[in-house]
Amino acid sequence: MSENENHERSTVSVIGLGQMGTRLAQAFLAAGYQTTVWNRTAEKADALVAQGAVRAATAAEAVAGSTLVVVCLPNYETVQGLLGPVAESLRGRVLVNLTSGTTEAAGRMADWVAGHGAEYLDGAAMSGTRLVGRPEALFVFSGSPEAFTAHRVVLASLGNAVHLGADPALAPLYDTALFGLAWGALAGFYHAVALVGAEGVDPTAFAAVATGHMPFVTSLMADHARQIEDGRYPNDDGTVEVHAAAMEHLVDTSEAQGVSTDVPELVKALLDRARAAGYGADGIASVVETIRKGEGHV
Amino acid sequence: MSENENHERSTVSVIGLGQMGTRLAQAFLAAGYQTTVWNRTAEKADALVAQGAVRAATAAEAVAGSTLVVVCLPNYETVQGLLGPVAESLRGRVLVNLTSGTTEAAGRMADWVAGHGAEYLDGAAMSGTRLVGRPEALFVFSGSPEAFTAHRVVLASLGNAVHLGADPALAPLYDTALFGLAWGALAGFYHAVALVGAEGVDPTAFAAVATGHMPFVTSLMADHARQIEDGRYPNDDGTVEVHAAAMEHLVDTSEAQGVSTDVPELVKALLDRARAAGYGADGIASVVETIRKGEGHV
Ligand SMILES: NC(=O)c1ccc[n+]([C@@H]2O[C@H](COP(=O)([O-])OP(=O)(O)OC[C@H]3O[C@@H](n4cnc5c(N)ncnc54)[C@H](OP(=O)(O)O)[C@@H]3O)[C@@H](O)[C@H]2O)c1
Ligand SMILES: NC(=O)c1ccc[n+]([C@@H]2O[C@H](COP(=O)([O-])OP(=O)(O)OC[C@H]3O[C@@H](n4cnc5c(N)ncnc54)[C@H](OP(=O)(O)O)[C@@H]3O)[C@@H](O)[C@H]2O)c1
Repeated sequence: MSENENHERSTVSVIGLGQMGTRLAQAFLAAGYQTTVWNRTAEKADALVAQGAVRAATAAEAVAGSTLVVVCLPNYETVQGLLGPVAESLRGRVLVNLTSGTTEAAGRMADWVAGHGAEYLDGAAMSGTRLVGRPEALFVFSGSPEAFTAHRVVLASLGNAVHLGADPALAPLYDTALFGLAWGALAGFYHAVALVGAEGVDPTAFAAVATGHMPFVTSLMADHARQIEDGRYPNDDGTVEVHAAAMEHLVDTSEAQGVSTDVPELVKALLDRARAAGYGADGIASVVETIRKGEGHV
Repeated sequence: MSENENHERSTVSVIGLGQMGTRLAQAFLAAGYQTTVWNRTAEKADALVAQGAVRAATAAEAVAGSTLVVVCLPNYETVQGLLGPVAESLRGRVLVNLTSGTTEAAGRMADWVAGHGAEYLDGAAMSGTRLVGRPEALFVFSGSPEAFTAHRVVLASLGNAVHLGADPALAPLYDTALFGLAWGALAGFYHAVALVGAEGVDPTAFAAVATGHMPFVTSLMADHARQIEDGRYPNDDGTVEVHAAAMEHLVDTSEAQGVSTDVPELVKALLDRARAAGYGADGIASVVETIRKGEGHV
C-alpha cells in the first residue's frame, strides 16, 4: 500500500482524553483523519466531537472503530483494566500505547496484545503537550516494525515519529534516558541562572546567550557518542584534568556567590572518578566509563 | 565610520599562538584582515606567516602593529607579565583579552588597561578551537561598548561575537556559567548513554534521537527563564512532585541496570528540596529558588 492510499483510508481511535490524549486526538483531527474518541468521563470528548471527532459509546466501540487504536491513560494497570474485558475486539488491529511505564510493563503488554492477535507499538511523548502536532514534537515508538511502517504517516501527525526498534521496551527505555538527559541540562541551566543572577544578570538575558550555545553542546554529544562507541577518548575538547580544574573553579565561584554547589560538585565528582580511573589525560567523554561501571572504573 | 570602511582599514594583532591563539589568527586571516602575530616560541608563527600573517619581532612590535590587539595566553598573570613592560605602547589601542580567568582578574585588568589610555574588552571562547571562524562558534565579550562597536565586524570573523555589557567581569562570569550548563547537559547525556547501553543500545543510535530532542530542552530553558524572571512557576511542563516521582523511577532503573545513580540522585535532591520548600505543586523551574538560596529555600 502506498503512503497515499494509507493516508486516505486511515482512521484512528483515541482512548483516554486527559491532557495528553486530548492533544493526540486534536492532532489526528487536524491532519484530516477520521478520529473516534472515548473517555471514561464522557464530557471530556465534547469539544473534540464539536471539532469533528466521532464519539464511541464504549471503549469496546472505540477499539472496533479503527484499525489503529491509540491509548493514553495514567499507567499500564489502567490500560490492562480497560482493555482486558474487550480483548477479543483487538484482533487484527494495532494497539499504540502512549501511556508512560516501565520496560517490563511494555514487554508484558506486548505479549498480551500479541496473544490476542493484534500488533503492538509502545510509545512515549517526549515533548510535553504543547508541541503535539508540530514537527518538532518527538514521539518515540518501539515494537512491531510492520505496524509502524503501515501507520507511520498517521503517527507522524503527532510530530517527529521515530521507530526505535522491534523490542517494545525501547520506547520506555528511551523515555527514561531522555528524561534524565533533559534534567541534566535543566539542572545545569538553573544553576547557571542562579550564578549569573547573583551578579545581577537577568534570567532572560542569560537564556538568550545560553540557548544560542546549546547547539554546540548538542554537537559535542554527537561527537562523544562516536568516541564512546569506539572506546577511544581523544582530548580535542580538553582533558579530564583540565575540566576538573575548571569545575573546581566553578565550585569556588558558586560558593563565593552564595549559590548551591550541588551541580558543579556532582560534575567534579564524576571527573575525579574518571581521573582516579586513569583517564586524566583523556577526553572528557571517558567520564561515561565510570558511570556505566556503577561505582568507579575497574 | 561605516562598517565597510571599518572593515577595509582594520588590522589586528594576535599575541599568543597556542592552540586557541593560532585559530584566532587563522580566522582573522581567512576573513581578509592584515594580521600581525607574535609568540614566545617564534616557530609557532611560521605556518601563519606562510598564510600571509605579518611576523612581529617582539610583543611590543605586535602591540604597536594594530589598533586592535588580541591576547590569548594561559592566564592573566602571563598577560600582565608580558604587557607590563610594554604598557606605554597600549595607549589609544583596544586590548581584547581572550585568556580564561576570574571575574576579579578581569576587573583588575580593565582598570590597568584604562590606566594606560587604552580600551579593554574581556572575552571568552565558548566553543572550543575546532569551530573558530564559523558562525556557530560563540565568543562572548564584555567591557567598553564603544570598543566593541568599533571592532564588532572584525571580531565577528571569529564566530558569533556577542557583547554582554560594559562590566568587564561579564565575560568570565558567562564563561563559568555556560561551562556549568554544558556540563549539566553532558553529565545527563553520559548517564543516558550508559543507561541505554546497559540494554545494548549503541551510543550513536541513542545520540541520533537525543540530539533531535535537545532543541525542545533548549526551548524549555527560554520558557523557564521567563518564569524565573517573573518568579511564577506555572506547571504546564509538569509539577515538581510529578517530576520527583519520575526521577525516582530513573534512580531505580539506573540501579537495576548497574549504572551509577549519581546524576538522577542529584536531580532528585534538587526536586526534593524544592518540594520541601513548598513548590511541590509548582512548575519545575521553581527548583532555581533552592539553588540560588544555597542551602534550601527560606
Ligand atoms: N501531560 C503530559 O504533559 C504528558 C507528557 C508525556 C507523557 N504523558 C503520559 O501520558 C499519560 C496520560 O497523561 P495525562 O497527562 O493525559 O493524564 P491526565 O490528564 O491525568 O488524564 C488521565 C486520563 O486517564 C483516564 N483514566 C484514569 N483512570 C481511568 C480508569 N480507571 N478507566 C478509564 N480511564 C481512566 C482519565 O479519564 P477521566 O477523564 O474519566 O478521569 C483521563 O482521560 C500518562 O502516562 C503520562 O505519563 C503525559
Ligand atoms: N584550547 C582551547 O580549546 C581553549 C578553549 C577556550 C578557552 N581557551 C583559553 O585560551 C587560553 C590559551 O589556551 P591555549 O589552549 O591556546 O593554550 P596553549 O596551547 O597551552 O598555548 C599557550 C600559549 O601561551 C604562551 N605562553 C605561555 N607562557 C608564556 C609566557 N610566560 N610568556 C609568553 N607567552 C607564554 C605559549 O607560548 P609558547 O608557544 O612559547 O609556549 C602559547 O602560545 C587559555 O586561557 C585557555 O583557557 C582555550
